Amino acid sequence: MLSTTPRTTLGRSKDRGRTDRAELHAVLDAGLICHLGLVVDGYPMVIPTGYGRIEDTLYVHGSTGASSLRAATQVCVTVTHLDGIVLARSAFHHSVNYRSAMIYGTARLVEDPEERLAGLRAVTEQLAPGQWDVVREPDRKELAKTAVVAISLAEASVKVRTGPPNDDEEDYALPVWAGVLPLRVEWGTPVPDPRLRAGIPVPPHIENR
Amino acid sequence: MLSTTPRTTLGRSKDRGRTDRAELHAVLDAGLICHLGLVVDGYPMVIPTGYGRIEDTLYVHGSTGASSLRAATQVCVTVTHLDGIVLARSAFHHSVNYRSAMIYGTARLVEDPEERLAGLRAVTEQLAPGQWDVVREPDRKELAKTAVVAISLAEASVKVRTGPPNDDEEDYALPVWAGVLPLRVEWGTPVPDPRLRAGIPVPPHIENR
Repeated sequence: MLSTTPRTTLGRSKDRGRTDRAELHAVLDAGLICHLGLVVDGYPMVIPTGYGRIEDTLYVHGSTGASSLRAATQVCVTVTHLDGIVLARSAFHHSVNYRSAMIYGTARLVEDPEERLAGLRAVTEQLAPGQWDVVREPDRKELAKTAVVAISLAEASVKVRTGPPNDDEEDYALPVWAGVLPLRVEWGTPVPDPRLRAGIPVPPHIENR
Repeated sequence: MLSTTPRTTLGRSKDRGRTDRAELHAVLDAGLICHLGLVVDGYPMVIPTGYGRIEDTLYVHGSTGASSLRAATQVCVTVTHLDGIVLARSAFHHSVNYRSAMIYGTARLVEDPEERLAGLRAVTEQLAPGQWDVVREPDRKELAKTAVVAISLAEASVKVRTGPPNDDEEDYALPVWAGVLPLRVEWGTPVPDPRLRAGIPVPPHIENR
């Protein structure tokens, strides 16, 4: 079950809330990037970035030189999938179908070398499954430049909207088309690096994604 | 030209920065939802939501009952397009191709009825161009329930990454496929509301999107 702290208890659209931890994992595992929220000098800042999950821990990485994400920083990580535009008969009831997860937590700077490597692997594999085992692993210099940050999934909420519009009863009589325009993310054809060595085919884990 | 305040001056990956206001508009106009960052009780909160643009003002809407977004709230609005996964020969140089905009500002609660309606129209049209003129406009009761918030685009930054990976020189000799796996958002086939009145075809602005 997911947490029921004040900030993960939905104030609005409660019917869209999901409480199963497996649904949190599913939303996160289906994503590519998150939007990471921080407070910097009292102001909000929202950064798009990659992430990875291992059990109930989320990992993000950054440059050790970046000033925004440090140990003990309070963060909100949001992952959103937009599944469709909900076209209603009234402007007011226009909406979107989506799956979203919001995670609240405290950034933990990962120090343990093994956990650091596992976190980086998770971030890389989230964006590009199957890549970690075929590419050159980070060397000591690269690892020294990389901050790995862990965020617990203990405090999180999930919201999902599906289905047709919810128009006002009297509006169903209007001569207006209503329904859902679905959208999805599609992979294109892999574009080889112009400097790719001759004779290296696109591997199946990229070709067949 | 875009602003050059401390928080819109890129600290890292400066080569990805864009300074033309037209590029900000292009990133925003191509988007469907934004991630809105706020500070609530000292903690960051990142909310996915719709938005619309009129010239150099961004509009978002919400319920007047929602507690998070009020007048004079400091916000950061981020719009991100993920264009491809950049597959390098080393784990360290994996990246993504993207276009993103970050807008920093103070929420202005829109009071003027004309601007409120224009803002709502912009939000609806961003998600569903062509809908406003064919659907029932908000009535007085709906308008009373809806908060319209304006955010100036005065303070904003834009980042864009395109092209192949940037591997370390010695890694180009590795027998590893490298390049970009593009991704894009595709529209599916419109799904009619089960309660759609008989004889209403999908209009061209939805069918041909």
